[in-house]
Amino acid sequence: MTEFDKECMLEAIKLSRQNLADGKGGPFGAVVAKDGKIISAESNKVTSANDPTAHAEIEAIRAACKTLNTFSLEGCVIYTSCEPCPMCLSAVHWARIEKIYYANSRKDAAEINFDDDIIYNEVSKALEDRNIPMIRFMNEEAKKVFFEWKEKEDKIHY
Amino acid sequence: MTEFDKECMLEAIKLSRQNLADGKGGPFGAVVAKDGKIISAESNKVTSANDPTAHAEIEAIRAACKTLNTFSLEGCVIYTSCEPCPMCLSAVHWARIEKIYYANSRKDAAEINFDDDIIYNEVSKALEDRNIPMIRFMNEEAKKVFFEWKEKEDKIHY
Repeated sequence: MTEFDKECMLEAIKLSRQNLADGKGGPFGAVVAKDGKIISAESNKVTSANDPTAHAEIEAIRAACKTLNTFSLEGCVIYTSCEPCPMCLSAVHWARIEKIYYANSRKDAAEINFDDDIIYNEVSKALEDRNIPMIRFMNEEAKKVFFEWKEKEDKIHY
Repeated sequence: MTEFDKECMLEAIKLSRQNLADGKGGPFGAVVAKDGKIISAESNKVTSANDPTAHAEIEAIRAACKTLNTFSLEGCVIYTSCEPCPMCLSAVHWARIEKIYYANSRKDAAEINFDDDIIYNEVSKALEDRNIPMIRFMNEEAKKVFFEWKEKEDKIHY
């Protein structure tokens, strides 16, 4: 690890600890960096923002995109105080972040009752085996919109 | 399906189509409902909000939480014009939504170049087999914060 890697991870861990004092959410922090500079540094805000998606990584991705004025974080890396849950891991993909540095593992998280494994298992299951029922209807109607999108010439793909 | 189910899904599909005209993002819409009432109805805003996490389902979850002033959508269901990607499926879990109605499938999405399958596969892989490298360090330092969280008495769990 470089000195910069250490600096970024220490910042993520500092934010995770700061959340205990501030009571903003769970003990998680994340930093997005590019070309040796910190772009964003955020903590979990689920309970204070009333937003179940406001995990540290999601918050850091949103903030970095805002700062860089883009929906693509190509060339960026993320430092997170804990292994990302499937929501955040997927967000890292959508954001095109290139590397993930993490400190605590999902096992460490499970020990303090943040059980990402349940969601990792759920995401990997066939639709008919999921805990949350998935019911399909109106496919024909919805698919028309997909065709219209396909034909649309001035669309912005992401 | 009830008349209300159909009404909600038609609204989600309407929003997915509206996005083509508005140019706010991909052709996706979602509705969160509770006790036979629509709580939120949102479309994808990735490219207009510069937020790669602004999928329709995430936007609908955020908006419903804001309206209901809570981080838990227990008792809610979601109607989405397309099968949720792993990010949105995980968000549905974190939000404690109880049922998912969807119209287009991930295969339909792949046909218009939204290839969630890549992310579904990635999430299911062992960490060392992932496309995005995952590098662990400073676990000892980060784990101290987890212990402090465990000991904290006035925490809000979610």
